[in-house]
Formats: sequence, C-alpha cells, structure tokens
Amino acid sequence: MVTLLELTKSFPDLLKHYSGDLNKSVTNPSDADLARDSSIIFVQNPKYLQGALNSKAMALVIPENSATSDFDSDKVILTSKNPALAQSVVCLKHFPVTKNKTSYQDSLIASSAFVHSTAKLGKSVIIQPNVVIGPNVVIGDNCVIGANSCIEADTVIGEGTHIHPQVFIGHSCKIGKNCEIHPQTSIGTEGYGYSHDEKGNHYRIPHYGAVILEDDVHIGANYSIDRGTFKDTIIHKGAKLDNHGHIAHNCEIGENSLVTAGFLMAGSGKVGKNFVCGGRSAVAGHLEVCDNVMISGVSNVTKPITKPGKYGGFPIQSYADNTKTLATLPLLPKLRKEVAKIKKTLGISDD
Amino acid sequence: MVTLLELTKSFPDLLKHYSGDLNKSVTNPSDADLARDSSIIFVQNPKYLQGALNSKAMALVIPENSATSDFDSDKVILTSKNPALAQSVVCLKHFPVTKNKTSYQDSLIASSAFVHSTAKLGKSVIIQPNVVIGPNVVIGDNCVIGANSCIEADTVIGEGTHIHPQVFIGHSCKIGKNCEIHPQTSIGTEGYGYSHDEKGNHYRIPHYGAVILEDDVHIGANYSIDRGTFKDTIIHKGAKLDNHGHIAHNCEIGENSLVTAGFLMAGSGKVGKNFVCGGRSAVAGHLEVCDNVMISGVSNVTKPITKPGKYGGFPIQSYADNTKTLATLPLLPKLRKEVAKIKKTLGISDD
Amino acid sequence: MVTLLELTKSFPDLLKHYSGDLNKSVTNPSDADLARDSSIIFVQNPKYLQGALNSKAMALVIPENSATSDFDSDKVILTSKNPALAQSVVCLKHFPVTKNKTSYQDSLIASSAFVHSTAKLGKSVIIQPNVVIGPNVVIGDNCVIGANSCIEADTVIGEGTHIHPQVFIGHSCKIGKNCEIHPQTSIGTEGYGYSHDEKGNHYRIPHYGAVILEDDVHIGANYSIDRGTFKDTIIHKGAKLDNHGHIAHNCEIGENSLVTAGFLMAGSGKVGKNFVCGGRSAVAGHLEVCDNVMISGVSNVTKPITKPGKYGGFPIQSYADNTKTLATLPLLPKLRKEVAKIKKTLGISDD
Repeated sequence: MVTLLELTKSFPDLLKHYSGDLNKSVTNPSDADLARDSSIIFVQNPKYLQGALNSKAMALVIPENSATSDFDSDKVILTSKNPALAQSVVCLKHFPVTKNKTSYQDSLIASSAFVHSTAKLGKSVIIQPNVVIGPNVVIGDNCVIGANSCIEADTVIGEGTHIHPQVFIGHSCKIGKNCEIHPQTSIGTEGYGYSHDEKGNHYRIPHYGAVILEDDVHIGANYSIDRGTFKDTIIHKGAKLDNHGHIAHNCEIGENSLVTAGFLMAGSGKVGKNFVCGGRSAVAGHLEVCDNVMISGVSNVTKPITKPGKYGGFPIQSYADNTKTLATLPLLPKLRKEVAKIKKTLGISDD
Repeated sequence: MVTLLELTKSFPDLLKHYSGDLNKSVTNPSDADLARDSSIIFVQNPKYLQGALNSKAMALVIPENSATSDFDSDKVILTSKNPALAQSVVCLKHFPVTKNKTSYQDSLIASSAFVHSTAKLGKSVIIQPNVVIGPNVVIGDNCVIGANSCIEADTVIGEGTHIHPQVFIGHSCKIGKNCEIHPQTSIGTEGYGYSHDEKGNHYRIPHYGAVILEDDVHIGANYSIDRGTFKDTIIHKGAKLDNHGHIAHNCEIGENSLVTAGFLMAGSGKVGKNFVCGGRSAVAGHLEVCDNVMISGVSNVTKPITKPGKYGGFPIQSYADNTKTLATLPLLPKLRKEVAKIKKTLGISDD
Repeated sequence: MVTLLELTKSFPDLLKHYSGDLNKSVTNPSDADLARDSSIIFVQNPKYLQGALNSKAMALVIPENSATSDFDSDKVILTSKNPALAQSVVCLKHFPVTKNKTSYQDSLIASSAFVHSTAKLGKSVIIQPNVVIGPNVVIGDNCVIGANSCIEADTVIGEGTHIHPQVFIGHSCKIGKNCEIHPQTSIGTEGYGYSHDEKGNHYRIPHYGAVILEDDVHIGANYSIDRGTFKDTIIHKGAKLDNHGHIAHNCEIGENSLVTAGFLMAGSGKVGKNFVCGGRSAVAGHLEVCDNVMISGVSNVTKPITKPGKYGGFPIQSYADNTKTLATLPLLPKLRKEVAKIKKTLGISDD
C-alpha cells in the first residue's frame, strides 16, 4: 500500500498529478478487468483508456497527451510521458514479486544445499534447498540461487543476480550484476564442434571458452547457451532473452538486445547493439549483424547485415520487401494458372 | 495377466467377443513385431490387420467392421468400435506404467525432500528424493512429485496429478486434478514484458498473474509456460501439450486441444476448444483463434481465425489453399523462366 | 604442458614435423587472437594460416598442403592431413576439460546423493551431489553422473558415460558406453500418443518401449527424446545431437548422424546412417530417410527420401533445386507485376 503522493514524489519525471486526491493509497497494480477500488492502472495505450475509466480502479496513470482539456474523471489521474516505464519502476519498487526470492528456512543458506568449502558467498546471499555450488565459485552480495540449481567450479556471479530454480551454469563462466536466469536453462555447456576421420566417426573438439553474461542480462526459461571454443560466448549488458532459445559457441549478442522466444543462433555469429527479433527467428553461423537491426518473426538471417533497419524473411530481405513477398505467396497458384493461360494464348510450348 | 473375459466385462461398450476362448489370459499389450504367445494386439488400422494375424499374439482387438463374415483366425478375436480407445483404457487399467510413480524409500516422503512446514500434503502423496516444496503449497491426494522437482510458494495441485522429476512450478499457480507434467518443464515463469527508457535500456514489468492448468491437462517435457501480467495464463481442461514448446504470458489454450511438439505462442493470444496443430506451428501475439480449428505443421497463425476449419501456411490460409501454395513453390524457378520468355516474345522490357 | 615431440609420437599419422624445435613444450591450444607464446594453434582452414603465423603462438599445426617449398616461419610447424582431427585427439588427450567431471567431496559418491540400495555402480563412478538413482539401475565403470540428475528404475548406463547435471533419464532405458548427455535433457519420457472418445476427450496410450542410446552418442542440452510405444526409440552408435531438439516416440537416428540444433522429429520415423542436417530442420512422422542424406537448415522432410544426396526446403527438394526456389522468393512481387502487365498487353481478363 502506497499513497499516490509518494509515487509522484518517487518518480517526479515519470508521474505528474492531473486530478484527484493524492493522499489516497493504492494497494495493487492491475488491468481494467481485475481492478479493485484500491487498484492503480497504467494505461500504456490510449485504446485502453476508456476501459480503465470504466473500471473499479482508484487511480490511473495515463499518457500525458491523453489528458486533453475536457478530460474528466472521478478517479485519481496521473499523467506520464511513458506509462509503461512508470509501470515498471513503480511495480519494481512498491509491488515487487518476492515469493520466488525467499529463503525456505531460518538460515539464508538451506541446510540441504551443497556449497563447496572453497566457494565464496557475499552478504545476504540466499541459497535455496538442494543447490549445488562447486569449487571456487564466487557469488556476489544479495544474490538468490534457486532450488536445485547447479553452479560448477570457478564461475563468478555478480551482485544482486537472481538464479531461479533448476538452472545449470557450467564451470568458469562469468555472470554479471543484477542478471536473472530462469528455470531449466543451461549456460556454459560444451559447444557442438566435432572433427571427423575418414571412416565418418566424429571426435569432440573440446571447448575452453566460457559464457559471459554482462550486467543486467535476463535469460528466459529452457534456454541453452554454449561456451566458446577458445574465446567466450558473450551476451552483452542489458540484453533480454525470452524463453526457449539456443545460442551456439563463440556467439555475441549486443547490448540491450531484445530477443524473443524461440531464437536460434548458430556458431561464431555476432549481432550488434539493440538487436530486436520476433519469435522463432534464427541467425546462421559465422556472420555479423550490425547495430540497430530489427528482424520480423520466423525470419532467418542467412547473410551479413551491414545497414541498420528492419528486415524479415527467408532469404532475408528488407522488412518492406519481405512483406510484399509474403503477400504474394497465397497468390502463387493463381499466378501459375495465369502464366499457363498466357502461354496457351501465345502458343508457347513447354521446353 | 488378465483374462480376456475380464477385459470384455470391464469395457463392454468397447470390447465385443468375436471368436476364441475368453478364459485365456494375456500378459501384455504389444505390436505385431514384438508379440509373444500371450500378448494382445490392438489393431487400430485395418492395414495392420494381416501383420497382427501373422504374429505370435494370443489375442487381437480389431475394428468392428474388419470382422467380415468370412473372417477366420485361431487367435482370440475381440472387436471394437474404437480399438485405439480400447487400447488406452485397457492399458491404463490393466497394464499401467508405474516405475516412474514409486516412492524410492520406505516412506512415501523421501527423507531428502524439503517440504516447507506450512505446506499441506494430501493422502498417499509420494514425494521423491530432493523435491523442494515451498510455503503454503497444497498437494492433493494421490499425487506423485518426481525427484528434484521444485514447487514454489502458494501453488495448489489437485488430486492424482503426476509431476515428473525436475519440473519447476512457480509460486501461486494452480494445477488441476489428474494432470501430468513432464521433466525439464517450467510452469509459471515471469512473462517477457519490458518497458524502455529513451536511452534504450529495458525495465522488467513484473508479472502478478499465475498459470492455471485445469483438470486432465498434460504438459510434455522441456516446455515453458509463462505467468500472466495481471490475469492468468490458462490451459483449459483436457488439453494435451507435447514436448518442447513455449506459451507466453496471458495466453489461453482451449479445452481438449492437442498441441504437438515445437509449438510457440506469443503473448496475450487465445486459441479455442479442440484446437489441433501440427509440429512446430506458432500463433502470433494478441489474436484469437476460434473453437475447432486445425493447423498443419510449420504454420504460423498471423491473424485471427474466426471460422472453424483446417488451416495452414505462412501467411495462414485455408488448408486446401495452402496445399496448393506449397505445391507451387518448387515450380517457381520454372515459372520465372516462362515469364521471361513471354516478355521476350511480346517485346516487353524491364521497367 | 606437453612437448611437441610427445605429440608427434602420440599421433604419428596425424602430426608430421615440418620445422622448428620439437623439444619445446606447449601449454595450451588456442586460436590466433588469444595465443600466448607457449600456445599451439590448429589451423583447420588455410584462410586462417596468416593470422596464426602472425600470432604469438609457439607452434602451429597446418594443413599438409599449406607447407609449400617456400614456407618459412620461426614457429614450430607441424603438418597434418586433418588438422581438425589432430585438434580433437590432442586436446582430448593432453588438454582435457575436467572441471565438470569431478567429485565435489572426498568420496566419489556425494553424501547428498540418493542411490537406491538395489542400484549397482561400477568402479570409479563419480556421483555428484543430489543425484537420484532409482532401483536396479546399473552404472558402468568410470561414469560421471552430474549434480541433481535423476535416473529412474532399471536403466543401464555403459562405461565411461558422462551424464551432466540436471539430466533426466526415465526408467528402463539403455545408455551406451562413452555417451555424453548435457543438462536439462529428458530421455525416456512418455510418447505423445492419445486415443479419443466420441466427445473429444483424449486418453493416454501408455508407452512400454524404452530409449536406447548406443555407444558414443552425444545429446546436447535441453533435448527431449520420448520412449517408444512398444518398440524402442533408438539413437544409433556415434550419432551427435546438438542442443534444443525433440525426437518423438518410435524414431530411429542412424549411426554417426550429425543433428544440429533445433531439430524436430515426429513419431515413428527413421533416418539412416550419416544423416546431417542444418539448424531447425524437421522430419515428419512415419517416414524413412535413407543413409547418407544431408538436409539444409530450416528444411522440413515431408516425404520419404530414398536416394542419398543433399536436400532442402519445404516441400523438400534436391538441395540444388531448393537453392533456386529460395532465390526466386524475393522476386515474386516483381513477377506478379510482370504477369499483370502481360495480361493487360494481351487483353486477358481475370476469370
């Protein structure tokens, strides 16, 4: 429970008072459907404004340009230049999700956890039950290591990082500060590299590189990120990866990239800063994508991209061109018939 | 071991005696190749009938319309209007798989499991080794919680549900009765929602919704299902999800849907009842698919579907139209040459 | 640290002395960028030769045909008919990765592991913390079972196999010698098989088959392989599967196949020996692919392949034809306009 006054004081750049009593307290953020009479709704999109106004909510945060001169409501109204950002910072500070960050016992370190005698844990580190922490692991202050997770030898984890349950982090990796890694994810597994003899047998090429997650990196659930052959696989600062993807050995993902679910990246590729991709997109091996590239869903980057912009398709095209290509596909059977008719008209025979 | 008489008595609607001695006992269901002289074969498809007749099996369950007047065999023959359903119910009752449902020690609750003091376990619940169960979790009668699984605070699990080993279920979720969740699956992870500041940094939008699995829902291995932002992500009653898929925040999967492997569903979408999809299909975000829709494999639903029927492709088309589109693709190089020839014939130059 | 003389003596067929002092010792394999003055570089591709020559490395292994008569370097130069294979065997023998194969405590069997009283462990088996091993499991000599992994009843694992942390292996499976299974992988989960009643409810068809991994099979991270209905799902000797794929019930993968990441195989299919596929390819159900087939990335095998060779696309074509089809796709909007123009020229109207 927090007063609206406190919210406007906490985030003066993001929250401006428009109308109503700031001394009222809100109990929870909500959407319109679920709102109670003490809820606050962050209206990210003007199309949801009317629904929010009609809801039971006590307070709304609305886009600043939605509060026109004739705007009137009996709710407490705050305006924001960025209601989505306001939602994030207000919720993270005042309504944090904590049920997944608790210690399960009186002590911070669960009695069933195995922490190697040479591992070093920072202050206020929570180790949930059945965690396994190998030799020489270093874990920074205020980290949470979720139940049944395993961190192999020599890996270093920065302050404030949250490793959810059932995560695997292989040996010698470096995880930055304030990272988050979700369940069933594998970081630092050996890359898929083999040599072959003349009989067709395959021999593993050992991988000595690590995986580096820089600060503020989030990795979703059921992800796999392989270590590099000699150099490291690197996810740069602030990149956010959704669930259920795979990044192969020696890859780099640029700073502040947004990688949605189902991503697949073959070995030794590099995508630049602020990369954004739709679901189930892929990047082929040994190629580079420059900074500030956006890729539509289900696309396959099969050649280097050297110019910022929007792209899509397979083969990869500009987004605009690919939209036209996609629109043509359903017309192909008709096009084929038309060409047959033209050939007949002209008396052109098949070769 | 069960007599054929007992089978016909147990499932009188599904199993009718056609010929042979019902007092014989069968030891195991089988296919034709592996059958022993005490096996029973369920012939789902008439094309496998001759192989079953030639096998060593003692008894066959055959489609009722396969037993024509001149049908003759020295095996015990039962007929069924639905041999596949007969196989399910007979096998589930008389030949259940139980090796994955056992307690590993004398007690039902393994000594190495961590069960929080505030958790409530029903009757005959089996908790395998190294399970972690958080505060206020409620587990119904006759559930099995597999080794190394983790169930976070406040989650409720209905009677008879089988959680396999190494499953993660986040806090505050609701799992119905008689559900089954396979290994390496994550239920209730935080949705992929971020806001962005003007510098391109991303801020998590906390997710307060849960994941609801209604009764009789099966989830395969290596699946991820994210919790909703405010409302819940819901998998409705009787839906069966194969392995290796991802369902994002705020989604709904309709009752009795059959979702095969590799499915990907972006946020805030809804598919109706009896949805059926082929492998590696996907549904884009913020759209609705009505009841009774079937999608072919490797399809991408990129717009709402409002009419029941069969669909396929990317962009999505009717199944019949997409079949034609797919058939045209290999012909494109030829089509291109033909158009070039026509242009030449007509003296049409490139613009 | 090993002398170059020892290397040439260990692998006389693969390493020939070309120039420089064989009594020098190398400390680590490397690439050119990270090389120190005691490093050895394996130059797999002549295009990387100059970079290796310019690096700090002490020694190079170069392709035998790269050492022409005028070749000169102050480094120690070895030649090889197969530098990649030389890299594998030298690294595996002299620079093995061992940090993921250690016991975490003084004893080989971690005190927190649960090993059922009826399980049989071979000599020098390492069981890391919190492992769960069920009744009648047999584990061969020199195996490593990673932290938090679970092996259900009756499964047999051959000598020298390395199960990484957080792997699930279901009951009654057989894992060969010298296999490797990476984290978050599920082997032996129940197949996706259901029967249906007239009301649209689904009933599980129990699966009695197992999963067999023959010797020298590697499975990547976050993989799922389902058990067969009656027969077994089989991955034949020497096959190497990358991360993040799914193989359904009753499938077979041929000997020495190379299956890259994101593979999806529907039920009851079979691919032959030496199958090679690019990323995110798929094989539909109930069909067979003969020996020695190569499939390009993002392809879908939708019909049987009976002739060895290279294939690609969806629908599947020869690789050469599919390359042409893919090249045509971006041209479709232009092709469509051309046909419209031709129709206008000829006075052909739409039907």
